[in-house]
Formats: sequence, C-alpha cells, structure tokens
Amino acid sequence: MSQADGSRFSRRQLVGGAAATAAGLSLPEGARARGRRRRRRVRTADVAIVGAGLAGLVAARELKRAGKDVIVLEARNRVGGRTYSKTLGAGATDVANMGATFIGPTQRRILALAREFGIGIFDTYNTGKNVLYFNGSRATYSGAVPPVDPAALAEAELAIVEFDNMAKEVPLDAPWTAARAKEWDGKTVETWKLENIHSPDGRKLIDLAIRAVISAEPREVSLLFWLFYIHSAGNIEQLINTAGGAQQYRVEGGTQLISDELARRLGRGRLIKRAYVTRIARKRGRLELETSRALVRAKRVIVAIPPAMAARIDYNPPLPALRDQFTQRAPIGSLIKTIAVYDTPFWREDGLTGQVTSDEGPIEVTFDASPKSGSPGVMLGFVDGDAARELDPKSPAERARAELESLARYFGPKALRPRVAFDYAWDRDRYARGCPVAVLPPGALLSFGRAVREPTNGIHWAGTETATEWHGYMDGAVQSGERAAKEVLAAL
Amino acid sequence: MSQADGSRFSRRQLVGGAAATAAGLSLPEGARARGRRRRRRVRTADVAIVGAGLAGLVAARELKRAGKDVIVLEARNRVGGRTYSKTLGAGATDVANMGATFIGPTQRRILALAREFGIGIFDTYNTGKNVLYFNGSRATYSGAVPPVDPAALAEAELAIVEFDNMAKEVPLDAPWTAARAKEWDGKTVETWKLENIHSPDGRKLIDLAIRAVISAEPREVSLLFWLFYIHSAGNIEQLINTAGGAQQYRVEGGTQLISDELARRLGRGRLIKRAYVTRIARKRGRLELETSRALVRAKRVIVAIPPAMAARIDYNPPLPALRDQFTQRAPIGSLIKTIAVYDTPFWREDGLTGQVTSDEGPIEVTFDASPKSGSPGVMLGFVDGDAARELDPKSPAERARAELESLARYFGPKALRPRVAFDYAWDRDRYARGCPVAVLPPGALLSFGRAVREPTNGIHWAGTETATEWHGYMDGAVQSGERAAKEVLAAL
Repeated sequence: MSQADGSRFSRRQLVGGAAATAAGLSLPEGARARGRRRRRRVRTADVAIVGAGLAGLVAARELKRAGKDVIVLEARNRVGGRTYSKTLGAGATDVANMGATFIGPTQRRILALAREFGIGIFDTYNTGKNVLYFNGSRATYSGAVPPVDPAALAEAELAIVEFDNMAKEVPLDAPWTAARAKEWDGKTVETWKLENIHSPDGRKLIDLAIRAVISAEPREVSLLFWLFYIHSAGNIEQLINTAGGAQQYRVEGGTQLISDELARRLGRGRLIKRAYVTRIARKRGRLELETSRALVRAKRVIVAIPPAMAARIDYNPPLPALRDQFTQRAPIGSLIKTIAVYDTPFWREDGLTGQVTSDEGPIEVTFDASPKSGSPGVMLGFVDGDAARELDPKSPAERARAELESLARYFGPKALRPRVAFDYAWDRDRYARGCPVAVLPPGALLSFGRAVREPTNGIHWAGTETATEWHGYMDGAVQSGERAAKEVLAAL
Repeated sequence: MSQADGSRFSRRQLVGGAAATAAGLSLPEGARARGRRRRRRVRTADVAIVGAGLAGLVAARELKRAGKDVIVLEARNRVGGRTYSKTLGAGATDVANMGATFIGPTQRRILALAREFGIGIFDTYNTGKNVLYFNGSRATYSGAVPPVDPAALAEAELAIVEFDNMAKEVPLDAPWTAARAKEWDGKTVETWKLENIHSPDGRKLIDLAIRAVISAEPREVSLLFWLFYIHSAGNIEQLINTAGGAQQYRVEGGTQLISDELARRLGRGRLIKRAYVTRIARKRGRLELETSRALVRAKRVIVAIPPAMAARIDYNPPLPALRDQFTQRAPIGSLIKTIAVYDTPFWREDGLTGQVTSDEGPIEVTFDASPKSGSPGVMLGFVDGDAARELDPKSPAERARAELESLARYFGPKALRPRVAFDYAWDRDRYARGCPVAVLPPGALLSFGRAVREPTNGIHWAGTETATEWHGYMDGAVQSGERAAKEVLAAL
C-alpha cells in the first residue's frame, strides 16, 4: 500500500520522536509550480470523476466494466479519501486507520468488495469488560448496558426506542416527504432531548451517542437528519454497537487497502493524483475540468467529494441556486483520531475490551485497534465535536498530554508510555475539512434535500453524503458510486 | 454610475421585451481566456483587499488615508457587492436597487458616507394605508399594527417584547458568552415560536417578520443568532419599521452610488475588476493573491466577502480548522427581488403606501420604490426563503406571472400591466450566492463564533457578516471595513 504521502498530512509525533512533524497541510508547492511551468496535459474521456475515495473509485470501476473511458482526478497524493492508513511508526508493517475503521455485518456492499479483493476481515477485539467514565468516576461493565443511574438508563433506552420508531417513518430516498418532516426538520436533536429526556445523566448519554456517531453536538443536528441517518443504517443499535453493529469487523491491512485495490485494478493512466479540480466548465458540448496538472475533457462528470468541498469548485455555468445553497448547508463534523501504540495490548491482560464511554474529554470513546495478531497493542481514541474544536488549536505537546491523560484515566498509567502516538485532525485536512460526514442543520433537508443527488448540466453527485443506505459510512460511499455510475450510463 | 455590467447578471425582462435576456451568470469567458493567454500583471501593495463591496471599499479608503498602498480585487465587473443598481429600462436615468435599498436613522456610518459624498437621502414613501393579505383576504390599515385577530396580535406583540429583552442580554462582540448562550444556540427560532406563540396567526406573523428580515425560514435560524441580530440593530422595531426604522430612507441614484463614489475616490489603478481571487498563498513573507487577471503581492490581506464565498478561496497554508468549519456553517439567505415599473405609482392615488404584508407568496412584502420625483411608479417586491427556493427554478414567464399576480392581489389588476418588470435572484448570483446575509444555524456561534473576525496568518476579515452593529446591513459593512483597516494599520 502506498504510504509515500504520509508526511504531507497533519500528523504529530506525540511521544517518542517528541518534535512534531510540522509539514502540516501545505500543498506540494514544488509540484504545483512544476505543473504551471510545464504544459498541462490535456486528456479526454467519456467520464471524469472528481475524487478517488471509495465512491469515485467504485463509480470508475462500474463505468470501466461497461466499456467507458474514465479518468479519476484526486487532489491528494493517495487514494481513499476519508479512509486513510498510516504505518504504526518507522519500519512497522501494520497500519492504523486514521479515518474509517470498522465494517458492520449488514454493510453488504463494502463486505463484498473486500471479499472480492481477498482482503481479510476480522472481529474487532471485544472480549472482557468495557469502561465507563462518568461524573468523575470509573467503572467497568460487561455487555452493552453501562452502569449508570437506572432512571437515566431507562430514559436513554426510551430514547432509543423513540428514535428508531420515528426513523422508520423517514423515507430514505426523500426524507423531506416524511409525514412529520416539517416538525422534525424544525428542531435540533438538542431540543428533542430537552423535551423528552429529563435526567441529567440520560441527557449526557444522548450527547455521547450523537457525538460518537457524527462528531457533532446535538444542537447542530436537525432531528429529521438524525432520524434519516438512523434509518439509513437500520436502527440505533446498528450505529452504536460493536457486536452485530457498525463496529463489528476490522480490515486486515487497513480500510484504505480497498481503495488501493480499486485504483490498482483501474489500470494505468486512469488516475491522476495531486490534481485538485478548481473549475468545471461546459465548452463546446463537453465538460472541461481544470487542475494544476491536467486539463480533462469529458461527456459527463461525477463529483464524488463532500458537498462542502464540492462547493469550492468554480462551475460554469454556475450550479442551480438550490444546489449551491444546499452545499452551504452541509457542514462536516469535527473529529480528531488518536492512535497510541504499545508493546502489547495491556488492557486485555486487565480483562478489558479496550472500549470506553466517557463524559470527560478530550477522548470520550476508544477501541482496541491492534492488528489481528494482537501485536503491537494499538489504542484508538475519538475526539468529537466541541472537544475537537477546543483541542485542535493547541500545540502538539499539549494535545499529546491531553489525549494520553484521557487514556490513562481509562486504562491506568501504562497508557502514558506508548511506543509511539500520533493523532490526525480531519478538520485540518485540506481536502476533507471535517469528518466523518456532513451533518445537516434544521431546514436543510426540507428546503434543499431535493438537490442532494439531482444531476445538473452533465454533472452527477456521489459520495457517502448522497447515500440512502449506510449514509456516512464506507458502505454508503460504495452505494453512491454504483448509483452515480448507473445514472451516467443511462445518460451516455 | 457604471451600468456597463448589467447584462452579465441574472435578470429577466418579465414583460415588455418578453424574451429573457438569458446571458445569465456566465463568467466573461473571453476575458478569462485572454487573461490566461496574456502574461498576468504582477502587482505589489501594502494591503490587498478581496471584494469591492462597501466593506472592502471602506477599508481601502481608510488604509489609503493612512498612507498605505492598497489594491482592491473585485470578481464582478462593477463595485458594490450586494448593493446593485439597475436602470429602470432602456433610456431611463433612474435606477432600481436590486440589493440593499434602505437606510435607517440610526445607521450613522452609512448616512455619514452619503452626506460626505453629497448623495441625497429622501423618505421612503409612507403616506396612506398599508395592505394586509392574510388567510385569503385583503384589508388595509393605517400605522404599524395590522388588523389581525386580537389574540394573535397580542402574542406577536409579546414576542417582540420577549425578543427585545433577550436580545439585550447578548454581548455584541461575543454572542457566545451570553449567560443563556447554550440554551439559545441549542434551538431554532421555530422551536422558540412553537413554545411561546400558540395562535396560528400569531405564528404566521413571526414567520413573516423573520423571512422579511433575513430571507430564511425560522427553522433555519439559531435563536441566539436571531437575538444577536436584533441587538445589533437596536431592537425589533428598528429592523421592521419604515418610519424610524431600517426602511426609513432611500438613496437618490441608488445605493450602489455610495460604492461607486468610494471607488472613484480611490484613484486610478487601485481597483481591478473581473478579478476573481482563487488562491491566497504565503510566499517569501508576502501573501500572494491569484486571479485570472493579476497576481498581487501584499503584506496583509483583507477578505471582504461573505464567509460562504470566502470558503471558496484556496488558502495556503490552509485556514485554521475553526475558521474553515465556521465558513461551512454560515449559509446565506434566499432572496429574489422583483421590480415592476408603471407610468405612475397608481397605488398612491388609491390612498396606499405601497407597503404589503402577506401570508401568501411568492411576494410577501412590498415597498413603493419610485424615484424621489414619484415618476415613474416603481413597485419593489420581496420573495424570501422557501418562496424564493420554489420560484427560482421556474421559467422567466412563470416567474413573471407569479410575481405580478402577487402584486395584483394587493394593488388590483393595474399591477398586471407594468411598463417593464424584472427580477434578480441573488441565490443565482455567482459572487453572492444568496442575500441579504449569512443566517447562522444552531451551534455555529457557540462553537465557531470566535472565528468570525479573528485574523489568521496576515488575513483579516471584513463584510457585514463580521459587524457588531447593524449586522447584515450596509451600515454594518461600513463598520467592518473601518475595523479591519484599523487592525491592519496596527499590524503593519
């Protein structure tokens, strides 16, 4: 798997190497300058695809299978988008997933791809007790029900039932047509919570669930969007569970491997990396895509990047008002992922799964992310929503201290001495600008939802933000790529 | 006043000429191509300013006064941004304001500018009765209180008092520090309305007020942002009133004239039009701004465009996460303005002010926008929020029919026969992508408000979206330009 680009993205050696690799997020200047000096390549294809994440690469594969000429333009120096694998330190062969990490048993599309490519799937480590850190004290527990105040638990369970029941009423292909769409898109999840959950701890549990799933605060999220999100996964347990849910499986070699395989099978010359698309213009019946490295002419275009990033392309003719205004209303969540590598997964010896639920940040959720072999021990921590926004501007040393102190609170002082640790701030990632998914505020679906997938002027939209099943997940990205390819094939 | 650019912007001859001028919003292709073929000009200045709206031009003036070298880069072929004057048809000398139209008596900054430039101010026509169109029937009334159900009126008046009282508690320079910020930024104005207003007609009145002020639906708006907006104007009556409020005065020659004067006084060579800034990069201690027409190097930059447009510039180094994520959460309202020109302002003869409040669209609010002379008669209609989103995709003929039918409902069949009529869809405007102002959803101020004005890496932020007084108005734009210039002078 190509990891050559690692140094170009935001990462920090928290421990060990001590000093941050401050290469940060700057564009490869040399490459841009060269691109400008050299004559740009001019390329022609049936279909040009913007973005070599799962959605774009799956669309490319479907189109190639149907005999069409495709070119995929990718801004980064790697494929995979919000799946991003990084080696566990110098010389290591195993990788950490800095982005999408897990696969659930009902995510049949992404499972089928892995199977087809011979990529191994294994169970997320889930043996032992979980840790609950709540109201300043730590407890361990078995199973899915954390040991909180019974009244709070009863309310949280009621909320799950209510969310699931309401979610079923949201049509996946047109959430804005739900009978109660106007009511549900008129309020935040925060408002629903305050109306329906009354115990402070019950409210905290709701906050934790929302943050863990979409890396945003309940106040930022339309209730209608949240219900749609639940329905697109099946139900809440599908979203939050490890066993039987979206966190059940891991991918041998890391999730980016699936995109790497897709890219490899696409064949030579079909993928242009470091090609940030700045403009898509209709000229003489073709669509012309401008990047610093190439000029591509195509009959149809698939834009397979998040709406907030798609907004940054200069379209000519300009996009319809509804589409442009939709892209102004699809902000991406705020997520920092932390990886700490230890000689062994010492928490296993302590009888722990490595899974934490905590009401104190910055890391509120963790998983054992060790390789299948169990060596080295890898701890994965999530910093979501406001915690990410507060941690992000701090120095690497301050961040490291805060992140490792979180882990020590849950797993003891051994957690303070990793072999190596690093984090990845998706909010800073130049080409994602947030993670894991766009989080729609009230009113966006009701007034602008029609624009999410509607093709315009030869341009089609893909990416997990356009999915109707497993929206926000790798599986949704695959669905979106297949759907966009079908649209284009019908149009060509 | 330069009107040479008129044909390049979305406008439709609704009547008279019949056929739409479909030039639409395309970039001046020829100019771009020439720019690419020619060697781009390289220019150097102390300060480069992005956007020649009121904010950018005022900043330029302050900096020039302090002896600094400035260059203003403007994407359009005119200055003025969201002030935009268009002649009232071929050969006419008077103009229609397609954007900002009115000035209020407490808007001292914009009043001072007009006075300094010798630009005349006159009272908005406000003699006679207003029209209320409500629940399918039309009534006329004198004064500010519409003849609705007394229970609804009482509730609406209570809402005004409540809004004003809460608004006073919102610190203008840091709304997120209000004692109840978390509560208020956790809900939509829609939620507040449903909690506090119970009569259907009272709720409708709230909807109308919100839409008329910010061209968005109550469900899209954070209560905290709405309270901040009110406080920044003084109180609700300042926002919604004609006499004594934000609609009291008109500008002879149109509001764009103020920007035209600012640009003229800036002197030769300080303003580059048709220069759409695509990239701002730090190079060898300077900031370098790329446009198709020029490359500008400066010590400091002021970006004086709406946040959602500022997001579309490619920054290197990239903006801090908090700033970029803020720009993903600042969608602009949805507004179409309609102008209908008649031989005379016939409604005056009928004893009417020309002002309408209606619960049936597409036009829900109107004003007499005739020149000071009273000839010709000019009717100005607002299509706000969802009504704009529904009307926008329709054909020019369908739009014309719907708009004129609205006017006829309020003013009788004479309204169906204008000398000429045209509308302007700000949502389609390539460089505004909405109007009048960014409308913040729940959570934006609380988690991202700190990023609204904070300079980063030599880049300062202006535009009415950064104002603390008369936020969203021309006056706020002036304040923001003055403030940004001060920041830059302190830093240079």
